[in-house]
Amino acid sequence: MAMRPAKGTRMKIVHSHDVPAQPVQEEGAKGATIRWLISRPEGAPNFAMRLFELEPGGSTPLHDHAWEHEVFILEGDAEVHSEKGPTRVTAGDAVLILPGERHQFRNTGQSVARFLCMIPLT
Amino acid sequence: MAMRPAKGTRMKIVHSHDVPAQPVQEEGAKGATIRWLISRPEGAPNFAMRLFELEPGGSTPLHDHAWEHEVFILEGDAEVHSEKGPTRVTAGDAVLILPGERHQFRNTGQSVARFLCMIPLT
Repeated sequence: MAMRPAKGTRMKIVHSHDVPAQPVQEEGAKGATIRWLISRPEGAPNFAMRLFELEPGGSTPLHDHAWEHEVFILEGDAEVHSEKGPTRVTAGDAVLILPGERHQFRNTGQSVARFLCMIPLT
Repeated sequence: MAMRPAKGTRMKIVHSHDVPAQPVQEEGAKGATIRWLISRPEGAPNFAMRLFELEPGGSTPLHDHAWEHEVFILEGDAEVHSEKGPTRVTAGDAVLILPGERHQFRNTGQSVARFLCMIPLT
């Protein structure tokens, strides 16, 4: 469902459950979905907000790219892996992954792990 | 507490509770604090992540500015006010406030309301 405008304004609101969860298709992803909450189609001028969900045992791909991630852990027990190994993250943690840094998120818990991941739009 | 680097990498992690909550000083703010989780000092290239907390009855100022907000409601019962009146928001809602749009967040519940608010860095 597209974001709904709030009462005759340009402001837009959507509940994350109303945004379709798409499987993360990139090679190396496992049990991972992404919901694009706010991006170009909604009118975002500069950066996008996405919600990831990882099943127990699931992970995003181990990869790197030329743009940063700003991540906020919403729920679950997870690890963020870098070239140097894993670091535990938990609900309420904010993570900055700089451009070019190799990274992967893994759900190490028994329930779904959820996190927001913001990226610049170019 | 500043973000801690993860094991010899440039990746940085901080728990939101470890970032000082500063009162929102702008006129019209009431019972509102802000934690700058990720911004220029942490190395953010393009946008910042802030965590707001509103006491019951608290609010951010009713204001507008030339940059957008991308907001994610973490907890609590709140309203986002625009020129056209209030819209209820709840945990899991994503809100896009476009540049120039007048807006205010109010906590209408009995417990603390928490939301993330991302802004571009210029």
